[in-house]
Amino acid sequence: MKALVTGGAGFIGTHLVRSLLERGLEVVCVDNFTLGHQDNVDCFKDNANYKFYNINIEETENFCEQLKDENFDIVYHLAANSDIQKGGRMPSVDYNDTFMTTYSVLELMRRCDIKNLFFASTSAIYGEKQEALTEVAGDLKPISYYGGAKYASEGFISSYTFMNDFNTVVFRFPNVIGPNLTHGVIYDFVRKLNNNPKELEILGDGTQTKPYLYVLDLVDAIVQFTLDKTMEKGVEIYNAGVESATSVTTIADIVCEVLGYEDVEYKYTGGNVGWKGDVPKFQYDLTKIHNAGWTASHTSDESVRETVKYIKEHI
Amino acid sequence: MKALVTGGAGFIGTHLVRSLLERGLEVVCVDNFTLGHQDNVDCFKDNANYKFYNINIEETENFCEQLKDENFDIVYHLAANSDIQKGGRMPSVDYNDTFMTTYSVLELMRRCDIKNLFFASTSAIYGEKQEALTEVAGDLKPISYYGGAKYASEGFISSYTFMNDFNTVVFRFPNVIGPNLTHGVIYDFVRKLNNNPKELEILGDGTQTKPYLYVLDLVDAIVQFTLDKTMEKGVEIYNAGVESATSVTTIADIVCEVLGYEDVEYKYTGGNVGWKGDVPKFQYDLTKIHNAGWTASHTSDESVRETVKYIKEHI
Repeated sequence: MKALVTGGAGFIGTHLVRSLLERGLEVVCVDNFTLGHQDNVDCFKDNANYKFYNINIEETENFCEQLKDENFDIVYHLAANSDIQKGGRMPSVDYNDTFMTTYSVLELMRRCDIKNLFFASTSAIYGEKQEALTEVAGDLKPISYYGGAKYASEGFISSYTFMNDFNTVVFRFPNVIGPNLTHGVIYDFVRKLNNNPKELEILGDGTQTKPYLYVLDLVDAIVQFTLDKTMEKGVEIYNAGVESATSVTTIADIVCEVLGYEDVEYKYTGGNVGWKGDVPKFQYDLTKIHNAGWTASHTSDESVRETVKYIKEHI
Repeated sequence: MKALVTGGAGFIGTHLVRSLLERGLEVVCVDNFTLGHQDNVDCFKDNANYKFYNINIEETENFCEQLKDENFDIVYHLAANSDIQKGGRMPSVDYNDTFMTTYSVLELMRRCDIKNLFFASTSAIYGEKQEALTEVAGDLKPISYYGGAKYASEGFISSYTFMNDFNTVVFRFPNVIGPNLTHGVIYDFVRKLNNNPKELEILGDGTQTKPYLYVLDLVDAIVQFTLDKTMEKGVEIYNAGVESATSVTTIADIVCEVLGYEDVEYKYTGGNVGWKGDVPKFQYDLTKIHNAGWTASHTSDESVRETVKYIKEHI
C-alpha cells in the first residue's frame, strides 16, 4: 500500500510519516520546507519505503506531472499554512498554501484515479460560535483567512468526492501540539521567557481557552480511521479533539513551572483575542469520534505540559 | 455612487446593470463574454454613466491593476460559470470562472478599500438535503463542482468580510430564468422541439422539481437589499426564491403549450437526476427574506411560462 503525505516534513506530517512507515506502508512525502524542516525527515532517508519530493504543491500542473506515475492508494493532505497570524498579514499565503494545495491534491486524485483521501481541516471553519461545535453545525462563518481557505477546501473536497467516487475522511483539528512543534503560543512563551525570565507578554487578556490535542494521539486517530477502519464512499467528517481545554494564562503557568521560572510578571496586551481572526474560545462536541472508537489519551493540560518538557530539552 | 458588476453582460448581470443605471448609479461592467454577450450590453453603450471592461476576472493581478483607480462604492459579483453540466466535464471551469473570480473580487476590495459586496451564491452549496433549506442549515455537502466552488467562495467571503470590515449581502439563488436566458432546461426544450416537434428527450425521469425564480423579481430584491436597505457589517445570507416549484415534465408541458406543439411524445432518459452533480429536488425555507420585506411576484410556473413566451419571440 502506498501513501502520499503532503506537508510530510511538517510538525504533524513527520509523526504521520513515521507511523505509516512503521505500519509497513510505502510513503511518499512532499514538502517545500515553508514550515516543514529537512531535519524532521532526515531520519527516514535510509528507509527503502520512503521517498521525498521537494515540490510547491500549489503549482497544480507541475505537482500532478511529477507525481502522476506514483500510483498512490491514499493521500494524506496535511500541507497548509498553519500560521494563522502570518496569513492575516498576507491573505495570499492561505490562498496558496492552504487552499491551492488542496485543489492540486484533488486534481492529482481525479487525473490519476486515486480514491482515498484524508484531509486535515480545522476548528477555524466554524468561526465564532458560542455552543459546543458539532460536525453538523450550520451558519459557519470563518473569520480568519486560514479558516476561510480550509472551509473552501472542504467545499471542493465535497464536490470532488461526489463527482469521482472518493472515500474521504476529514478531521477538523483543534490546536495540535507536541514534539517538533514549530510555532504558536507555547513556543512563543518559551522563547520570550528564555530571553527575559522576569516578565512575560501575553497577547489578549489570557482568558482565551482552547483544547490542545497531543500530536501522537491525533496520529493514532488518523491511522485508525484510514487504515484500521474501511474508508467508505463519500465524505465523513469528525471533530478530533479533547474534552478538556487550557487557557492562555494556564499555559503561561505551566511553561513557567516546567522551565523553573518563578515570580514572572504577566503583562497582558488586553482584549479577548490574541490577534484579528483569532477565535478566543471554543469547545468541540466529540460524541461522533468517541462513538466511532477513539478518545485522546492526554488531556489538554497534559498535552501542554508534555510539549513544554519537549521544547525545554530540545531548544 | 459607483458600482462594479462582474458578469455584467450575462443573463442576470444585464438586468442588474439596467436597473442600477435607472437608479442613477455609475456602473462599470466587467465581462469576458464566456457566457455573456456583447448584444446584451450594446444598449447601454451611449449612457454616460456606463463603462465596460473586457477582462478575465480570474487573472487576479491584471484584474486588480486595471480597476484599481475606479473607486467603487459597491461590487456586485455575479461572474461565474453558471453551466453546471459543463463544469462537470471539466472542473477547471468552475475553479477558474466560479471560484477564482471571487478571489479576484475580494483582493480588489481589500487592496482598494471597497467595503460593500453583493455575492450571487446558489442552492447548490446545500448539496442533497431532504428538508426545506434554511440559511443556517448545517452539514452542507455540495455535489457539483459548481456548488463546491460557490461554497468555497462563501468561505473566502466570510473571512475577507471579517478581516476587512466589509458589509456583505449574499443571496443563494435557485434556478433563475427570464429574458436573455442563455442555457438550461427550458432553452434546451425549445431548441429540441423546434428541431423535432414530434418527440422530446427529457433527461432523468421528469420528476426533478425545483423553484424557478423570475430574473426581474430577483433583480428587484438585489436592488432593495443593497440600495434601499443599509448594508451592515458582516455577512448576511438570504435564500432568494419562490415558494412554488416546477417539475421538468411540467416545464415540458408549458413549453409545448406555449409553442403550440401537440401530441409530443416524451422520451425520458431515466434516473432521478439530469446529470451527475444535479440535485433533483429542493425547496427553500424563505422565512428570512420574506420577513425582511421581499417576496417574488411570479410563481415558479409563471416564471417558466413568461420565459418560454420570451424565447418564442426571440429565437
